[in-house]
Amino acid sequence: MTETVIAAPIRERFTAARAAAVRLATTTGAARVEALTAIAAAIDSHADAIIDANALDLANGRENGLSSALLDRLTLSTERVASLSASVREIAALPDPLGQTVRGSRLPNGLKVDQVRVPFGVVGAIYEARPNVTVDIAALALASGNASILRGGSAAERSNAVLVALMQNAVGAAGLPRETIQTIDEFGRAGASALMQARGYVDVLIPRGSAGLIETVVSSSTVPVIETGAGVVHIVLDESARLDWAVDIVHNAKVQRPSVCNAVETVLVHAAAAERLLPPVLDRLAVSGVTVHGDDRTREIWPAAVAADEDEWSTEHMSLDIGVRVVDDLDDAIEHIRRYSTSHTEAIITEDLANAERFLAEVDSAVVMVNASTRFTDGGEFGFGAEVGISTQKLHARGPMGLTELTSTKWVVRGNGQSRS
Amino acid sequence: MTETVIAAPIRERFTAARAAAVRLATTTGAARVEALTAIAAAIDSHADAIIDANALDLANGRENGLSSALLDRLTLSTERVASLSASVREIAALPDPLGQTVRGSRLPNGLKVDQVRVPFGVVGAIYEARPNVTVDIAALALASGNASILRGGSAAERSNAVLVALMQNAVGAAGLPRETIQTIDEFGRAGASALMQARGYVDVLIPRGSAGLIETVVSSSTVPVIETGAGVVHIVLDESARLDWAVDIVHNAKVQRPSVCNAVETVLVHAAAAERLLPPVLDRLAVSGVTVHGDDRTREIWPAAVAADEDEWSTEHMSLDIGVRVVDDLDDAIEHIRRYSTSHTEAIITEDLANAERFLAEVDSAVVMVNASTRFTDGGEFGFGAEVGISTQKLHARGPMGLTELTSTKWVVRGNGQSRS
Repeated sequence: MTETVIAAPIRERFTAARAAAVRLATTTGAARVEALTAIAAAIDSHADAIIDANALDLANGRENGLSSALLDRLTLSTERVASLSASVREIAALPDPLGQTVRGSRLPNGLKVDQVRVPFGVVGAIYEARPNVTVDIAALALASGNASILRGGSAAERSNAVLVALMQNAVGAAGLPRETIQTIDEFGRAGASALMQARGYVDVLIPRGSAGLIETVVSSSTVPVIETGAGVVHIVLDESARLDWAVDIVHNAKVQRPSVCNAVETVLVHAAAAERLLPPVLDRLAVSGVTVHGDDRTREIWPAAVAADEDEWSTEHMSLDIGVRVVDDLDDAIEHIRRYSTSHTEAIITEDLANAERFLAEVDSAVVMVNASTRFTDGGEFGFGAEVGISTQKLHARGPMGLTELTSTKWVVRGNGQSRS
Repeated sequence: MTETVIAAPIRERFTAARAAAVRLATTTGAARVEALTAIAAAIDSHADAIIDANALDLANGRENGLSSALLDRLTLSTERVASLSASVREIAALPDPLGQTVRGSRLPNGLKVDQVRVPFGVVGAIYEARPNVTVDIAALALASGNASILRGGSAAERSNAVLVALMQNAVGAAGLPRETIQTIDEFGRAGASALMQARGYVDVLIPRGSAGLIETVVSSSTVPVIETGAGVVHIVLDESARLDWAVDIVHNAKVQRPSVCNAVETVLVHAAAAERLLPPVLDRLAVSGVTVHGDDRTREIWPAAVAADEDEWSTEHMSLDIGVRVVDDLDDAIEHIRRYSTSHTEAIITEDLANAERFLAEVDSAVVMVNASTRFTDGGEFGFGAEVGISTQKLHARGPMGLTELTSTKWVVRGNGQSRS
């Protein structure tokens, strides 16, 4: 355990989380489901108190000039509170990730060796102005047998305080330690900074939020971090792409929900198919109000496009804007992706088997797709039930993270007197 | 990709490694085996050049007052060079870890979703004065389809330079990029520091060496790190422990190879069994020259023990020294382990089923054992063939790391026109 300068009151929370984690590690799935069910019920029956606290955060946010997007994310309406408890009930219904034997064998010397799934212990989360994340992470951590320490930022402090208190009472009433879920919001930046230095207390830290926040956590943390990242997502329209699939998939990937990380940001079209594909694909986007930022070759074919500037190819718009570039061939497309992608999700629309397989093999992103919308990169769609986030790093978890990704393993060895020779 | 200040010549190596990784990701297992076989042959046929370069490092080390232990680790004798190439051949004989489908399903909408094993890309390693690690890490990385960037420290610089040049030529002759394996030793500390900041170029960084080196890498690196750690390893002698197993296992775990991380450092004995077990267990250790550092209760029963000082319980001796403490019961033993263990390996010797299961469930270490020597925590013993190291962290890999632990996964999604509704 590393000794860092962590103020005593914060260290107390960390120690309490550690103790709670010890208890949680040997709980049954049924006990954790009972606690989750109690949390859902507590949220439902205290919806008014949650909304009242949230109103204070919102008033404060308006005073401090928070953007309307941030205010929206911060808002807990009656419907949103109901969806919080619904989400906890969904998590409670997922299969227990703990105790599963991942690998196992009997060695020649008679030793039985099994790799068994266990909780991390204590999961930390640093996020911004999103009270729903407070409930999501706490519930996912609890479902996977982990204690959680939450730093949700000052903008949502009152909402988070009420939610955490409710959840602590519910967990306590269900017979598990109240300290299973804790906030360190009242310690401000000192709390966040202690959390990033809490090696030995916290086993994994998950940042969720802006690129700036994630960058800070990755560069400052000595606790192992799971990076959930931005998506500069590409769709390649290959020479052989079916027109109807190209039109439907690009439209779906851009328009269905433009503000999320799996929405497409750049379309790369094979030069030999650009005249055939671009007009119908881009017309359909334009009807839905999408602004097309095209390179010169695109604008020759579809003059309504505005000129793409230099930053276009590395921009995650998260809005009804899309970059479109004509590429010479598949190599050119893969090279573009290698250069500009954040390695989240990329798709190719093609009827050519060899090109499909090349794309899947050579594009090094968390999710690679053939003839499907990039919007499918999602824990729910993949059948994980709940989603912790989408990892764009390669260590531990890659792509949508479910409950399994909040666990580690340990090796259990059973012998009868064996020594090594 | 983060922009950090990395000097151009170092950045060039990183870029070359990235390009090599792109090639490696689509190689067949046969092509990688061919390159590994060429490396083994090159080491054999250039043994003299390796030993000559090593002699210069050794002379330099003696001049600089390197300890005899460090000089020993640095030394490449004829036998040790032969064991380097033997180890590469063993790695070449392991099953290819790439391409395996880890999980896969057909979603209700017809999408086929598979999680497939892929290389990390570029693996970095920072280590000290151990030219054998140069070959081990390079070969393990290559076998798992990764490029490697090695920083082996100034003490072994000449040995490492010759080994890397040999391996590069061999890999090149086998038709893979020479830059599959690179050293940055000649850039000194600037190289090490660039490697720790090479996010976007390097996918994972493995420190191997002293606690101080590992601590520096963990606290300074923005590249994800796999921590291989020290082992303050415990054996608990439960009230019901069989005497012959207790004697044999403690002796094996301490004496068979005291300088390694899976050797036992502390024995905790149940108070009710201390008089029965301690004299024969400690007599047997004493015969092999082990110094016993006992607590007061141990010294009452076995007066030849020296008094354990305050630091005893957190010390990794790696020598013929052992700490021995009498504990009140299993709770007391588990509490001691929780406080002092580095979470590497712990074992219990017991005939009581309930106590065995409690120990396995409640002790949170990478490897937990019943009635077996802690010396079995080893990739070779577990059947992994080669070993990258033993991870004491919970993210990504825990316990002995084989080739699989040098891989990541990606999700491959195959559709026929699906959009999300």
